[in-house]
Amino acid sequence: MSKNTEVYLNQYKNELLNNVLPFWQNYSKDTENGGYFTCLTREGKVFDTDKFVWLQGRQVWLFSMLYNQLEKKPEWLAFAQHGADFLKKYGRNEDGTWFFSLTNSGKPLVKPYNIFSDCFATQAFGQLYKATGNDEYADIARTTFYSILERRNNPKRHWSKAVEGTRPLKNFALPMILSNLALEIEHLLPKAKVEQLIDECIHEVMDVFYDKKSGLILENVTPEGCFSDSFEGRLLNPGHAIEAMWFIMDLGERRGDTKLIEAAKNIVLHTIEYAWDKKHGGILYFMDILGNPPQQLEWDQKLWWVHIETLIALLKGYLHTGDKKCWEWFEKLHEWTFRHYPDSEFGEWFGYLNRAGEPLLTLKGGKWKGCYHIPRGLYQCWKTLEKIQKNEK
Amino acid sequence: MSKNTEVYLNQYKNELLNNVLPFWQNYSKDTENGGYFTCLTREGKVFDTDKFVWLQGRQVWLFSMLYNQLEKKPEWLAFAQHGADFLKKYGRNEDGTWFFSLTNSGKPLVKPYNIFSDCFATQAFGQLYKATGNDEYADIARTTFYSILERRNNPKRHWSKAVEGTRPLKNFALPMILSNLALEIEHLLPKAKVEQLIDECIHEVMDVFYDKKSGLILENVTPEGCFSDSFEGRLLNPGHAIEAMWFIMDLGERRGDTKLIEAAKNIVLHTIEYAWDKKHGGILYFMDILGNPPQQLEWDQKLWWVHIETLIALLKGYLHTGDKKCWEWFEKLHEWTFRHYPDSEFGEWFGYLNRAGEPLLTLKGGKWKGCYHIPRGLYQCWKTLEKIQKNEK
Repeated sequence: MSKNTEVYLNQYKNELLNNVLPFWQNYSKDTENGGYFTCLTREGKVFDTDKFVWLQGRQVWLFSMLYNQLEKKPEWLAFAQHGADFLKKYGRNEDGTWFFSLTNSGKPLVKPYNIFSDCFATQAFGQLYKATGNDEYADIARTTFYSILERRNNPKRHWSKAVEGTRPLKNFALPMILSNLALEIEHLLPKAKVEQLIDECIHEVMDVFYDKKSGLILENVTPEGCFSDSFEGRLLNPGHAIEAMWFIMDLGERRGDTKLIEAAKNIVLHTIEYAWDKKHGGILYFMDILGNPPQQLEWDQKLWWVHIETLIALLKGYLHTGDKKCWEWFEKLHEWTFRHYPDSEFGEWFGYLNRAGEPLLTLKGGKWKGCYHIPRGLYQCWKTLEKIQKNEK
Repeated sequence: MSKNTEVYLNQYKNELLNNVLPFWQNYSKDTENGGYFTCLTREGKVFDTDKFVWLQGRQVWLFSMLYNQLEKKPEWLAFAQHGADFLKKYGRNEDGTWFFSLTNSGKPLVKPYNIFSDCFATQAFGQLYKATGNDEYADIARTTFYSILERRNNPKRHWSKAVEGTRPLKNFALPMILSNLALEIEHLLPKAKVEQLIDECIHEVMDVFYDKKSGLILENVTPEGCFSDSFEGRLLNPGHAIEAMWFIMDLGERRGDTKLIEAAKNIVLHTIEYAWDKKHGGILYFMDILGNPPQQLEWDQKLWWVHIETLIALLKGYLHTGDKKCWEWFEKLHEWTFRHYPDSEFGEWFGYLNRAGEPLLTLKGGKWKGCYHIPRGLYQCWKTLEKIQKNEK
């Protein structure tokens, strides 16, 4: 009935190598000032020249990772280094924290209010160190990482708008990212530190933010890990939750913890069933766990990263547990995703669709969409399908 | 051909008195803790109990204004005072600035990062002073207003994320609100101060933020009033621009400045022609002046306040200038607005429609939508239609 594994495998491989990567290689390099342009129209034209540290770091990481894991292509390494040079030169404040954005030529534009800039810089320089053995990169990654850990309990610092003490909440994004970052830079940390961090991440994600009653992951919980009946406390971000689950499965695989993998797989399935749009297909961006109107006006939109991250999680779930529901959902979501996101005319994928699945913005890159989720996801799906295929033989 | 003025007039009057006001009187009063609930479902059920100072202040203002201008109904004054008591008791930080939000019982939740909380508090206590003659209210309004003027050039204070000096921009919202606030509290200020403030506001809105080349109002400009080719600089918020134009017409009327009114009316017509959605009707929420993808994912949504504010501006334009294009646009927009926003089943109006005009969120009130734009707009339209009718006779 279904397409065989090899057909899918070739589709992901081809999409990565012949559609998505060339788009960024052709259009995103700033040959004059260094770094990457990420604000690209449908056709690949630069419509804004600001440089966002999240996206600069993610693109350095992506090409370094492909160089390390897929093929030692000199142009991939050079392209990664091109972005890293810019980041190294202009990205940091005096105190070593990373700006959120820079002008075209590297002048700081937006202050280091956002700790995820630091996370993606760490990830970038950690991978680039692997590719080059350059100690300076290792040092940047390690220093930034320890600075993140120091700020962990107060990541917004004086930019936080919450009055202390009234309704303390902690947010899922940082423990989620750390679940991935721990493995990304384990080659730069003492082994005991890595193991401790992994323990903490698994606990945070699977005990603290996981809501037993609903079987879903909450975006914000009280310091004790309880539900808060407030806009923040009721918020679900299904894409976030599902992305975190494949990070957890990777941790489970590393530790040989099949129970952990099984639990993560079950959360993926439950979340996709909960967040699947019965009307138009695709996965909703935000939901309120009590069914109230969410604050986010974009709640019903269909975002590229949510869909590709879910494809990864379903394939990893299937690979590790053999649960047929993972494969069935994979096929259904694959069909929806490939019908709506890839742009057959100008390459790469649309990012922002409205509820009905039509492009809401036709851009290929902007302030938040860059060269990251799609190529990472295509690579992850391709390689996971290879393993699935091997098991089948 | 068209409905006559009286039919429209009665429709706005009836909508205000028999549909919209009763909804807030019935459902928004917190009899236990004081203040108003504003997070109300379609049916009027409270779905969140947080209290947002913008909306508390706006509702106090609305009922005080109706008491002052429409009818001395004791229940309107009591309802305004109910909210004012809560605000007075819990709304301010030690330094006199206003919190952004409070819990149900008045504990501060979100810090005073947003200067518009102070603007709406000023407006509220200024009107309530008019209704009561209570000097304490006058003092709160005046003190808050002078504090706003002091912070005017740096309204975000340490919460600002922009690196000083790299790309300084100023934002349209504050001069726009001050254009209205100047008249709202002129009874509390020295005459010379009011006139100076009005001069400044007219200059800011009509010279600094008005872009001669496009004939449109920009949301953000350089300190010199020039265009900045950046996401912020390219941003258009048509509803904002049009709302400001009726504030300017009110200032023009006060000064007998027919040239100013004519200029404002022309901007209204140009903006609505520019921002009218040719596909589905209604006015778009955000646009990029160069036609690039805007950052705001909600750019194509149809918001209640945009539409009611535009109805006011068109009627005022028609009243003062007799330009038939204003009346034609009024009839077209009136038809679209009354077909999509009022909820015939549960009362009040939907706030957030998708591009096609279907409710995206069915709430009647939330964090940003309260008892303000719709009743104010219905009142303004009704009273402007009365003047138009008088001119016709």
